[in-house]
Amino acid sequence: MLDHTFDAGLLNPLSHGTRESELTSDQAWLQAMVDAELALTRALIDAQLVPEWMAAVCDALADASLLDLAAIAVEARGGGNPVIPFVKHLGRAAEKVRSGASDHLHVGATSQDILDTAAMIVARRVSCELIHQLDNLGATFADLAHEHRGTVMSGRTLGQQASPTSFGFVVAGWLDAVLLIVTRLERLRDTLPVQLGGAVGNLAVLTEIARARRSDVADGTVSVDAVLDTVLERFADHVGLVVPRLSWHTNRVVISELASVLAAATGVAGTFALDVSVLSRTEIAEVSERLAPGQGGSSAMPHKRNPVSSVLITAAALQTPGLASTLYGSMLAEDQRPSGAWHAEWQSLRVLERLTISAVTGAASLAARLDVAPDRMRANLDLTDGLVFSERVTTILAETVGKTTAFALVERASQEAFLTNRPLQVVLASMLIAEGCSDVLRTQVWAAFNYEGQPGQSGAGIDRVVRSFRQRADAAALLAAAPIPALARANPRTP
Amino acid sequence: MLDHTFDAGLLNPLSHGTRESELTSDQAWLQAMVDAELALTRALIDAQLVPEWMAAVCDALADASLLDLAAIAVEARGGGNPVIPFVKHLGRAAEKVRSGASDHLHVGATSQDILDTAAMIVARRVSCELIHQLDNLGATFADLAHEHRGTVMSGRTLGQQASPTSFGFVVAGWLDAVLLIVTRLERLRDTLPVQLGGAVGNLAVLTEIARARRSDVADGTVSVDAVLDTVLERFADHVGLVVPRLSWHTNRVVISELASVLAAATGVAGTFALDVSVLSRTEIAEVSERLAPGQGGSSAMPHKRNPVSSVLITAAALQTPGLASTLYGSMLAEDQRPSGAWHAEWQSLRVLERLTISAVTGAASLAARLDVAPDRMRANLDLTDGLVFSERVTTILAETVGKTTAFALVERASQEAFLTNRPLQVVLASMLIAEGCSDVLRTQVWAAFNYEGQPGQSGAGIDRVVRSFRQRADAAALLAAAPIPALARANPRTP
Amino acid sequence: MLDHTFDAGLLNPLSHGTRESELTSDQAWLQAMVDAELALTRALIDAQLVPEWMAAVCDALADASLLDLAAIAVEARGGGNPVIPFVKHLGRAAEKVRSGASDHLHVGATSQDILDTAAMIVARRVSCELIHQLDNLGATFADLAHEHRGTVMSGRTLGQQASPTSFGFVVAGWLDAVLLIVTRLERLRDTLPVQLGGAVGNLAVLTEIARARRSDVADGTVSVDAVLDTVLERFADHVGLVVPRLSWHTNRVVISELASVLAAATGVAGTFALDVSVLSRTEIAEVSERLAPGQGGSSAMPHKRNPVSSVLITAAALQTPGLASTLYGSMLAEDQRPSGAWHAEWQSLRVLERLTISAVTGAASLAARLDVAPDRMRANLDLTDGLVFSERVTTILAETVGKTTAFALVERASQEAFLTNRPLQVVLASMLIAEGCSDVLRTQVWAAFNYEGQPGQSGAGIDRVVRSFRQRADAAALLAAAPIPALARANPRTP
Amino acid sequence: MLDHTFDAGLLNPLSHGTRESELTSDQAWLQAMVDAELALTRALIDAQLVPEWMAAVCDALADASLLDLAAIAVEARGGGNPVIPFVKHLGRAAEKVRSGASDHLHVGATSQDILDTAAMIVARRVSCELIHQLDNLGATFADLAHEHRGTVMSGRTLGQQASPTSFGFVVAGWLDAVLLIVTRLERLRDTLPVQLGGAVGNLAVLTEIARARRSDVADGTVSVDAVLDTVLERFADHVGLVVPRLSWHTNRVVISELASVLAAATGVAGTFALDVSVLSRTEIAEVSERLAPGQGGSSAMPHKRNPVSSVLITAAALQTPGLASTLYGSMLAEDQRPSGAWHAEWQSLRVLERLTISAVTGAASLAARLDVAPDRMRANLDLTDGLVFSERVTTILAETVGKTTAFALVERASQEAFLTNRPLQVVLASMLIAEGCSDVLRTQVWAAFNYEGQPGQSGAGIDRVVRSFRQRADAAALLAAAPIPALARANPRTP
Repeated sequence: MLDHTFDAGLLNPLSHGTRESELTSDQAWLQAMVDAELALTRALIDAQLVPEWMAAVCDALADASLLDLAAIAVEARGGGNPVIPFVKHLGRAAEKVRSGASDHLHVGATSQDILDTAAMIVARRVSCELIHQLDNLGATFADLAHEHRGTVMSGRTLGQQASPTSFGFVVAGWLDAVLLIVTRLERLRDTLPVQLGGAVGNLAVLTEIARARRSDVADGTVSVDAVLDTVLERFADHVGLVVPRLSWHTNRVVISELASVLAAATGVAGTFALDVSVLSRTEIAEVSERLAPGQGGSSAMPHKRNPVSSVLITAAALQTPGLASTLYGSMLAEDQRPSGAWHAEWQSLRVLERLTISAVTGAASLAARLDVAPDRMRANLDLTDGLVFSERVTTILAETVGKTTAFALVERASQEAFLTNRPLQVVLASMLIAEGCSDVLRTQVWAAFNYEGQPGQSGAGIDRVVRSFRQRADAAALLAAAPIPALARANPRTP
Repeated sequence: MLDHTFDAGLLNPLSHGTRESELTSDQAWLQAMVDAELALTRALIDAQLVPEWMAAVCDALADASLLDLAAIAVEARGGGNPVIPFVKHLGRAAEKVRSGASDHLHVGATSQDILDTAAMIVARRVSCELIHQLDNLGATFADLAHEHRGTVMSGRTLGQQASPTSFGFVVAGWLDAVLLIVTRLERLRDTLPVQLGGAVGNLAVLTEIARARRSDVADGTVSVDAVLDTVLERFADHVGLVVPRLSWHTNRVVISELASVLAAATGVAGTFALDVSVLSRTEIAEVSERLAPGQGGSSAMPHKRNPVSSVLITAAALQTPGLASTLYGSMLAEDQRPSGAWHAEWQSLRVLERLTISAVTGAASLAARLDVAPDRMRANLDLTDGLVFSERVTTILAETVGKTTAFALVERASQEAFLTNRPLQVVLASMLIAEGCSDVLRTQVWAAFNYEGQPGQSGAGIDRVVRSFRQRADAAALLAAAPIPALARANPRTP
Repeated sequence: MLDHTFDAGLLNPLSHGTRESELTSDQAWLQAMVDAELALTRALIDAQLVPEWMAAVCDALADASLLDLAAIAVEARGGGNPVIPFVKHLGRAAEKVRSGASDHLHVGATSQDILDTAAMIVARRVSCELIHQLDNLGATFADLAHEHRGTVMSGRTLGQQASPTSFGFVVAGWLDAVLLIVTRLERLRDTLPVQLGGAVGNLAVLTEIARARRSDVADGTVSVDAVLDTVLERFADHVGLVVPRLSWHTNRVVISELASVLAAATGVAGTFALDVSVLSRTEIAEVSERLAPGQGGSSAMPHKRNPVSSVLITAAALQTPGLASTLYGSMLAEDQRPSGAWHAEWQSLRVLERLTISAVTGAASLAARLDVAPDRMRANLDLTDGLVFSERVTTILAETVGKTTAFALVERASQEAFLTNRPLQVVLASMLIAEGCSDVLRTQVWAAFNYEGQPGQSGAGIDRVVRSFRQRADAAALLAAAPIPALARANPRTP
Repeated sequence: MLDHTFDAGLLNPLSHGTRESELTSDQAWLQAMVDAELALTRALIDAQLVPEWMAAVCDALADASLLDLAAIAVEARGGGNPVIPFVKHLGRAAEKVRSGASDHLHVGATSQDILDTAAMIVARRVSCELIHQLDNLGATFADLAHEHRGTVMSGRTLGQQASPTSFGFVVAGWLDAVLLIVTRLERLRDTLPVQLGGAVGNLAVLTEIARARRSDVADGTVSVDAVLDTVLERFADHVGLVVPRLSWHTNRVVISELASVLAAATGVAGTFALDVSVLSRTEIAEVSERLAPGQGGSSAMPHKRNPVSSVLITAAALQTPGLASTLYGSMLAEDQRPSGAWHAEWQSLRVLERLTISAVTGAASLAARLDVAPDRMRANLDLTDGLVFSERVTTILAETVGKTTAFALVERASQEAFLTNRPLQVVLASMLIAEGCSDVLRTQVWAAFNYEGQPGQSGAGIDRVVRSFRQRADAAALLAAAPIPALARANPRTP
């Protein structure tokens, strides 16, 4: 059976060399389940609801590879989720460490507490990796934007050459999207909550246990609420997540947010990749992927140099919206645990995370391998024989004859230029003579047909985005270098 | 033709009585386009790039109902978007006010600048309405949660009765979701950006104009960048939006965020509605929609009292994930304006907004008309002959015999109770005698079969959520009562 | 309120000039509801369950514009669907025609019977229109494919020029897709079923009525089943639909099929449109939309000639997958009428139909306005300096040196040609000399660098597809010319 | 790395015990790629374009497990698809069998030819398995429907009890959906096409080769078209697929059809499962899953007996619409091979197939383990104190007083019964006395409150569906028993 279930990545070439498997495989999920379960036990020790000696048992159980993943997976069918057999296997392993230890595992928890917390642990690890890769991508973009501040190229709308822009400005647009999404992802990463509510979400079992096991609770010195707050805070601490206001078994706002940020991150990578695909078309050829030997080939055509990475990243971005929609659909969760909606989340979220990791990692690699051809950009601009300057000359003319007249005039000239295959500069000059306009104006219009300088405010725009990105990156680096991990303590109640 | 295109709401019964049409109709969009266009002109006046007398023209053009919506719609096909004919119609109207005025409209802007800004204006208005309705919904939930703190009902998982909970706690779960989403919506509302970049996004035309019309720019006293910053800030001010770091014609992160928040808001309303549908099933009957005369009937069955609102809200929530996925797909926007992806956003976003308004407004109405039947909740709990206490008695037994043994014991007793149709309380008592356990423990277990008190920590949980919601509502109310509209000034560059 | 709900098409420019409004507006749905309701009454007359004089009443009520659409829409909220107020309004209108007539309307039917049947009537009309437009589109494609059999152009894969093909062959690919989808649509159109089951689907009321009103049934001469079969057959006859095996209130396979064919039809139109977008890029310019005056312009750039129709059709195709997914989701329909899934279908199906009509009609128009530039196709092929012949020369060389060696040789030559900017023909010739290969082979390879003849089997492929399409079109035309409408009688039970 | 990529099914409990892995794993795809590649070579032998001795090489290479799947997967990234490394590995294996053999593999084919054909081979195998499982499911439904012809239960609409129906009739509805989808799946299975076109779809290479290697072609005795037709027919024969009219690299209608049938099949299974979830709710308890020991338990509640299979099947059905929408989106395939759309299909199609296999297989198992509780169905009907008879008594009354009056009367009586907690039978009797109606009518109305007989035409409906299903099953069995596999020869050109 294992042979069959094994997916080597044959149908997902983008994933190789990324951390998607390491972070989202069944093994990674099982480890996160172990982390969740043991963090709960440690939190109960901290709250004096479970004996101290369980700490050593937790230490001994910490490595998920000690468990039989395949057996747990097979047994999962019985209860409809993997936690039920997992708890049994973990309990058996605990008994081997110390007799009676299994009684102190999974205390007060329901399956969904463990699986949801594990999902958040996985999501946090995935988020960290994505932030890291987005930072790489952004850093490359920042350099490219800076380098190509003055590299003039044609801006294109609806596939048609429109007006001149600079390649640096185009890159700044990609960078701005990276900056928006990395900021959003960071904010989300720091609000991912643990799940703990017990069977129907109200912590009933832990309440009973606190009363039974803490004499200070029994005698009223300490409130149950205070004890349970400690459990939740320590639980969150141990796994690096935050404490939610309430258990969220059927309140899936956080999952919907996660889905939306992941899909948007893939979208950001995908837009960049799609632009690379377009700009590396044979007839445009303004950028190209630098290919390693063996990359970009074809099984039929020896000459092919395909923009492989951009194609695969685009393909990933085409798959994420459907997966996100499934996760949005799962918000419709009835009762205290729904009959299907929750179960539909697991694989959809996992595949969404995988695609996002491969897309963003792939984009970082693609950006670093981007060859830019300024000469070709310039040559393509010349293709329209000056039509790309129509907006600019209209603006100049408008100062004298008014915008409406100027637009009509240039529109007429453009059509004539197009139909007669003559440069707009020439056609317009004749027309302005015929219209009897001043020499000064004609000279000004004639002079407008050049590519010098940065088009419009692109320089200022590039600087603004690059500066913002670098500020964030510096701040993040500072935080990462801090002696005490700030995030592990970021567990106040969701504000 | 008008007869045909007119949709009276026949297929969308939920929308009646809501503000969805008012806020998202073609007329509303046209008004937003007028608002965007005139705000731009006023900003240009503020920056001394357009003559002062245009202010009066703007005043005269402010009402979109003066324009011929139907004609603009028909002419939209030619250019593939409604802005092109709209600018022509607006220009003609301007000329009637003052000759030459049309030259000072749509200066420096491209179609997408106007339509995207209009979309953000509409989105802001929609967000405000949604926040208002979510506040209503939340206030009702807060009252209900408080009122039903002690109303015991069965918690249900996978459709089966699981353990006791309180209706107040269930409501607190709904409220927590409302609070999460209203907070997210507020944050988003205050970051919706204007769009202004000109044909290819780099403000090329406005740069030329600033140089031509401002002598202080021409002589280098003032920088072009400073002038353009003024234009953008004033533009954003006039429409109550913020200034983005860069034009975002093909960087659709903000649209994806909007889509995700809208879909999540409908999901929050939908989950509540779905719960109402389930709980008002004939055999459960724990809640019901209070129906007005004429509501909830059937065309075939005189006795029917259908939970109409909850059904229609659920139906809305089933439609939003697909629409959100379309908007995610539109992130793949190539070039400086894509060949389809942008155009695919318009209707999808509008329908998504409509469904969300109807769903959230409908939910607020439904919550206010919710009849709760505590007796029925109690009666349903009795249906399982004590099985719903299995978790509780296991916990109690576990204190003495250990968790594993206790679970096995209660599992065996539950099966016997189920098969022999006897109460778990009785079966378990016999079993404990047979096992020779102490009288104290037996008494304790016997006593556990009661519904007194709040199950688990539900009281504390309810209080925490209600308190958080009310704090937010108070803060929002305070803000709304402030003398100067805070939001109209909330236009620093996106941080 | 009407002002607000009125959508003039501002955000859907593609729809103007198509029949989408006429076929799918609220008015069209109301007419279909009238058609369904009266067809049922006429069927009951045919089966002698309703008095003969009702035929005249039906005649008098046949025009839906006599009803107050807006009032029905407003009242629809009460019952959650428009049929309940519709039946009341129709009944009042009937009473005006003849007292007591309302008792003979909506006999034995439930709301869903009427709305589902109306949906099928609308779907049938939409299908007929789509088949008509697809036939138009296909006819243009057939002509284009024939005309451009020998028009050589570059085949492109992953955006890169690959090998020569002919424009006729590309068109034949579009035509084949049209042929596949029109065939599927025809088959579906002829299996669209009526819905009739009464409240819970089992025809209970009609069974009672047959027993009460038909003495031959009461005395056992005729079976109830025979009478009800007559009702169903006549009902289907009157609306041109077929009789299903069973009522299908919660068996939505037919809706899923409809969704899939509509989405696929839009996809077929969209692929063509996307190809036109790509091929009309400024740098490629192999085809272009012939624009009418006023079409394809820009609000900012006087020179723009945008491929407007292809962009809008692509945009439609980007919207349909999400809508189809909603309809697939609605298959999850519990009980005998679900709490939301059915209601979620109405608008999704309607919008899907609209987008499909506009996309397919737009594609037919676009195909008829397609300008083809054979010279440009040829010029673009020259851009690669012979690289597009790599597959061909590899094939020729392989006959002598084997495929593996040939591939390696041409791959090396291609890289050298690419790096040194020399024609592959020249590089390869030198290489073959260096390898000491025969003059005959070198001559053969040298000669392969030409565009004469149809590439590969494209002629045969074009002929095959064009022939198949024309055969179908002829057969359909023959059927349409038949004296008695064949389809109105196509109502045997679904096989 | 293998540890990480290995998915044991932890997050997909439904798959265990099904053939999904065997049929859709990477190994299964690799085998299908081998099958496709060798079938092409054999077809070329048949057409005398490749030497006879290659037949023995093909025999030696037939088992895909001889290839290094993991290595191929890793190398797939370079070219963006797995075929490029696969052909290299296969070639190396061929050389070991006979020197020079690799030159005769992958002749005339492009990567997409092999991968698309492999996808169709996988799809055909998946379809056969699905048909088999649907036949099992249908057979169980047929038996259940027959057995429960007279088992009266409440029909429910919008969650409310509506009118009596029979459980057999409900099952017949499920069966009808199975019959519709199995028929559609069979039709699709028999039209799945091979893919063969070479680099840009026009068979250019094979045309050259036919001219070079067949002297009868070179001398004009035999046409190239005839030879290529032979290749295609034999290719299709060898893999059990049909010959398409044209290569379909960017005409993805067939993929969209496949997606739609798969999603619909999961929807059919899901509707049944959802009904089981609802009907097995604690408060309804009309059906239940027969659980094996260890099934249906909970990690927290010893008494739980969860409807596990129905929950997991429902979860699968919630995931398929989003995947289908991705495949619909991939119809937008530009050029002769698109930059992402094709690549986005692979995983989406595979996961869709997996979910469908698990859902349908799970449904067959669930149906076979369904416990039905006729007593409980009857008891639930009694809950409404006669309200479920409202439609029936209205019908009876209408014969005397007219439909409108009858409806109003029963509506009034129902409300009074509901408000006063009295049986409708009693309330209505009093009311009829008060209205002075005849004793005969009162007796008739009184007698209507009983559950005898099949409600409405349910018996005839059940028989019709069961008969149709069994006829199909018999025909399919006959076909399967035929001496020569009919399908392997079903390869005429798509009609």
